[in-house]
Amino acid sequence: MRKLLLISNSTIHGGGYLEHCAEQIKQFLSKSNVKQVLFVPYALHDRDNYALTAKTAFEKMGFELESIHTQPSPVEAVHKAEAVFIGGGNTFRLLKTLYDENIVSEIRKRVLEDGMPYIGSSAGTNVGTISISTTNDMPIVYPPTFKAIGLVPFNINPHYLDPDPNSKHMGETRETRIKQFHEAEDTPPVLGLREGSMLHVEDDRVTLLGPLHARIFQRGQEPVEYPPDSDLSFLLRH
Amino acid sequence: MRKLLLISNSTIHGGGYLEHCAEQIKQFLSKSNVKQVLFVPYALHDRDNYALTAKTAFEKMGFELESIHTQPSPVEAVHKAEAVFIGGGNTFRLLKTLYDENIVSEIRKRVLEDGMPYIGSSAGTNVGTISISTTNDMPIVYPPTFKAIGLVPFNINPHYLDPDPNSKHMGETRETRIKQFHEAEDTPPVLGLREGSMLHVEDDRVTLLGPLHARIFQRGQEPVEYPPDSDLSFLLRH
Ligand SMILES: [Ca+2]
Ligand SMILES: [Ca+2]
Repeated sequence: MRKLLLISNSTIHGGGYLEHCAEQIKQFLSKSNVKQVLFVPYALHDRDNYALTAKTAFEKMGFELESIHTQPSPVEAVHKAEAVFIGGGNTFRLLKTLYDENIVSEIRKRVLEDGMPYIGSSAGTNVGTISISTTNDMPIVYPPTFKAIGLVPFNINPHYLDPDPNSKHMGETRETRIKQFHEAEDTPPVLGLREGSMLHVEDDRVTLLGPLHARIFQRGQEPVEYPPDSDLSFLLRH
Repeated sequence: MRKLLLISNSTIHGGGYLEHCAEQIKQFLSKSNVKQVLFVPYALHDRDNYALTAKTAFEKMGFELESIHTQPSPVEAVHKAEAVFIGGGNTFRLLKTLYDENIVSEIRKRVLEDGMPYIGSSAGTNVGTISISTTNDMPIVYPPTFKAIGLVPFNINPHYLDPDPNSKHMGETRETRIKQFHEAEDTPPVLGLREGSMLHVEDDRVTLLGPLHARIFQRGQEPVEYPPDSDLSFLLRH
């Protein structure tokens, strides 16, 4: 029943909001006959403005959009939604608000039991995975746990960034950070999803979309690059 | 009584471990007649190796060094320490271990009541401040709180990085991330400490050391640049 579109980032350099993934979103939602999308703007502070941006983009793609922050009951809104889109921003703020509004388990139930399509971008992709432990964001607020909605049993690092060979900056590279995550036992695989990439999940089939390779990190192994359109279904069985 | 040396980062591009701040560390410790330093390696996974690196650097500066992870009781080790040095690595792992070992309040007491000199670098600087909410690290483990040792009532962003005008990467800039932190009410000032910079705190006097400007962010205000050797004592009175 599971139908997910997990996007690395909402805007690529020089493009408009959701422009680079508009075709994939259209196909993904049309296949399930979705007319209206429920938007979750919790990752940004200015929810009204964020909802307007999302509404404009989705209407251009031919879908209606309602933002959950204008609904009397967030749980009820998820309960009756045709599809959900969780936008990017700060992952800690997003996850904390999902728990504050009591919708983590309701979203999981609707996606895994009812087959409600789920689209996430950036922070919205992080919270769709098993935990937010591989977000790039600053911990500006303290969520009750780092466990997330858990629609897939692995982690994603959105906006995945290769080391810059010319940089004089000494902060950890993205790869080093992910390897530190894997120093602990029983840590799941991490998919490094570069800007412009998406992951499509349909039941037990996982496919890499977009023009770029993705990099998969597994504890105790060297990272491996996978080309566009790769079947990554093994990530569900790790 | 408070004596702190809060370093942005332990190694600058092309230099050796603690080389760029060796003079400041020597002065800082000699002033208090410190002979031996207690090292806290919890931010990295390989504690033995980390302790060896730190020991070599401190011996070169003329100080003995013992690592807390080789002591039978971490609390007792802090209790009798002449000075403490907390090294960098992953801030979440570091803070969680400080709580697991029950030494957060003991360090605070020793520094604020007994005047024990405290040196922090990178993650060790983050945990010396009011909270780890402005770390750059990945949340690879879940600490019981983001509240830190609280030796100063503001936040620091170590490895502070200016936006790269040539970047095509769309992840948030460091400045954007800090501004998101300040979207919440009652959030303290954030000192953006560039690589190569240090903050010296002696009682109620705060001085910026190193060759670079630092950038101070306050909620609802435009960020302000401060030149080397600036008196930043106002940060203690915000
Ligand atoms: Ca983000
Ligand atoms: Ca670090």
